[in-house]
Amino acid sequence: MSIEPRTLKGFRDFLPDDARKRSFVINAFRRVFESYGYAPLETPVLEYEDILAGKYGDEGDKLMYRFTDNGDRKVAMRYDQTVPLARVVAQYGNDLPMPFKRYQISNVYRAENTQRGRFREFLQADIDIVGADSALSDAEVIKVAISFLEKLGFKKFTVSVNDRAVFGEAPKEAIIAIDKLKKIGEEGVVKELTEKGIDVSILEKIKSSTPTPRLQAVIDIVNDPRVVFEPTLARGLDYYTGLIMEVEIEGYTAGSVLGGGRYNNLIGMFAGTSIPAVGFGVGFSRIMEALEEQNLLKIDASVAKVLVGIFSPEFEKDSLETAAKLRSKGINTELWLEPDSKMEKQIKYAVKKQIPYMIVIGPDEKEKGMITLKALATREQKTLPLEDAIKMIA
Amino acid sequence: MSIEPRTLKGFRDFLPDDARKRSFVINAFRRVFESYGYAPLETPVLEYEDILAGKYGDEGDKLMYRFTDNGDRKVAMRYDQTVPLARVVAQYGNDLPMPFKRYQISNVYRAENTQRGRFREFLQADIDIVGADSALSDAEVIKVAISFLEKLGFKKFTVSVNDRAVFGEAPKEAIIAIDKLKKIGEEGVVKELTEKGIDVSILEKIKSSTPTPRLQAVIDIVNDPRVVFEPTLARGLDYYTGLIMEVEIEGYTAGSVLGGGRYNNLIGMFAGTSIPAVGFGVGFSRIMEALEEQNLLKIDASVAKVLVGIFSPEFEKDSLETAAKLRSKGINTELWLEPDSKMEKQIKYAVKKQIPYMIVIGPDEKEKGMITLKALATREQKTLPLEDAIKMIA
Repeated sequence: MSIEPRTLKGFRDFLPDDARKRSFVINAFRRVFESYGYAPLETPVLEYEDILAGKYGDEGDKLMYRFTDNGDRKVAMRYDQTVPLARVVAQYGNDLPMPFKRYQISNVYRAENTQRGRFREFLQADIDIVGADSALSDAEVIKVAISFLEKLGFKKFTVSVNDRAVFGEAPKEAIIAIDKLKKIGEEGVVKELTEKGIDVSILEKIKSSTPTPRLQAVIDIVNDPRVVFEPTLARGLDYYTGLIMEVEIEGYTAGSVLGGGRYNNLIGMFAGTSIPAVGFGVGFSRIMEALEEQNLLKIDASVAKVLVGIFSPEFEKDSLETAAKLRSKGINTELWLEPDSKMEKQIKYAVKKQIPYMIVIGPDEKEKGMITLKALATREQKTLPLEDAIKMIA
Repeated sequence: MSIEPRTLKGFRDFLPDDARKRSFVINAFRRVFESYGYAPLETPVLEYEDILAGKYGDEGDKLMYRFTDNGDRKVAMRYDQTVPLARVVAQYGNDLPMPFKRYQISNVYRAENTQRGRFREFLQADIDIVGADSALSDAEVIKVAISFLEKLGFKKFTVSVNDRAVFGEAPKEAIIAIDKLKKIGEEGVVKELTEKGIDVSILEKIKSSTPTPRLQAVIDIVNDPRVVFEPTLARGLDYYTGLIMEVEIEGYTAGSVLGGGRYNNLIGMFAGTSIPAVGFGVGFSRIMEALEEQNLLKIDASVAKVLVGIFSPEFEKDSLETAAKLRSKGINTELWLEPDSKMEKQIKYAVKKQIPYMIVIGPDEKEKGMITLKALATREQKTLPLEDAIKMIA
């Protein structure tokens, strides 16, 4: 029986070029989060179903990967990183320092409609502060977001902020409509409000709001011109209780790359108490897309800086030793592995992998105690002592 | 309804202390693999069931997590990283450079009996060379293993190697018995052979074998006294076609930490051709255990090097600015987030998180344009300019 090699819809392989870019960006994430003292957390891909079910609304329950395992347990795949965080906080209690500042970068699973360009396995990066309710903690989260974008090289972006309290007692349907202002415009919002039988004056009222004293305090602490009060921002609203934030990158039109806020009623759900929390999540795919668009991913095309070729079988040992010397100098070095290949084949391989340099040791080089270094982009080559080549490559 | 916060049997949370150790070790893995020019590959957690089913024997089919998804597709969770590699090789064909040298570090899922200290979600790290059949490629894989163990700081270890051909036409049951020599001793093997009705002289015959010319060539290329010919080594044997290798660390008794070999009949299963391959997999949990036992994990207990406390609300801004300056010098810095906390509480927090230093700016410090630096291990403290403190901390 022949089985067609294929991946499930919404699931992706990342071949080396993409996988390297991803791990480069993930490392940048980690460095920024850790510079603020956030520590990593890992939770399992599978949880008991009752831990996740009912936490993400009807939509979430519908899109969740759920099944019964071999031991007849009802299980579900990680749908986000916030509910697992709530579980961890309840489960380990006093073992955790409070405030608990953690980041988590892992895949989540949602059986989304892939036609909308969504994936079913995708990477999320979250930071959260659990157990602090101050304006300063709201401000820190905004600052981490700004540092993060700067670290990645983005120059122009806007951090829109709002406070849940700005919406006061407005009905939920009104908030949902007003939240769409950027997407559907003023006319669209008015139309939706009218359809729902809501007095349209609420739009003007919300639009002309001023920041709450708490939000103003947060804005003052952050003290950055890229932070802008946006009274219509709700981000679906469902669980935010205070700060709401969202980042858009200038020139990147697919939507916000980062969103979050304060959600004081969620983390305590398993602990049975109220535990304040504030944080944000990064849309990894969008960040990658924006980085590519703005040409900010400065990463070598090849893992190896140099391919050490093999002139002929009797020079295998010389090539092996040369490769070892290069590695000992911290240079990522690939050794050609078939000693009887033609040189042409070896060069082709290096070019395909975009390895910048190639080194060959044949009879002439060996006699002189030298190597030949070839720059593959220009095909220029030079016979010189290995030490000099190392200086050029490193 | 109150839901008990809990994890599934065989699944683990990694709280910050452990998560940091894990990512430290994973980074060491990556650096070694990349120094040899291996590039990362990522594949999905979920595959079509028919890609994985029947590839791991009856045991594998039994232990595999399988279910039907919302779209009525039969799916299965990643069980190892070799079958996905075979799929990738068949699926992307000529887009991949050949030889294809990749590493993959990700979780795999097996519904193991957890009473044997096994986990159901565990990290695997594999490197493989696909498309090279030379003794040199066997030797490279052994060299990568040695570099890897050295990089982690292990001094004494043995790389046992064998060649499938050493067993010649010996019956499968005989090989399975002889493979257990280390575990059950000579007596045990003789007993098992007798029970199976096999002439016990085969044990002596195998034990007194000499390396095949191919294996001798591999050993000569590696040229390292820690590589030892072990004619009884089979590692279950099922799919090895040439080299078989296994690493044991002196003093670590839970078993081999790394195993692999050449398997020329596996990678071509989807492509419908024969594709040579050689590689190894690392047992991540065992490596972590061995590192802990031998005290080789030199990693700071805390992400943050310093906690900047807050003397009282009116000094919040000074603390904020100080924290920003420390970060700009590359020092991971946590800022205390509740401006009206007592200093005692802040110190307690720093001690619990094992943050080495604390900085406080109060009225005296502010007047002098200085800060107070406290070393939390000794409780010694000193008032000095921030610049001097940075030199001490960094």
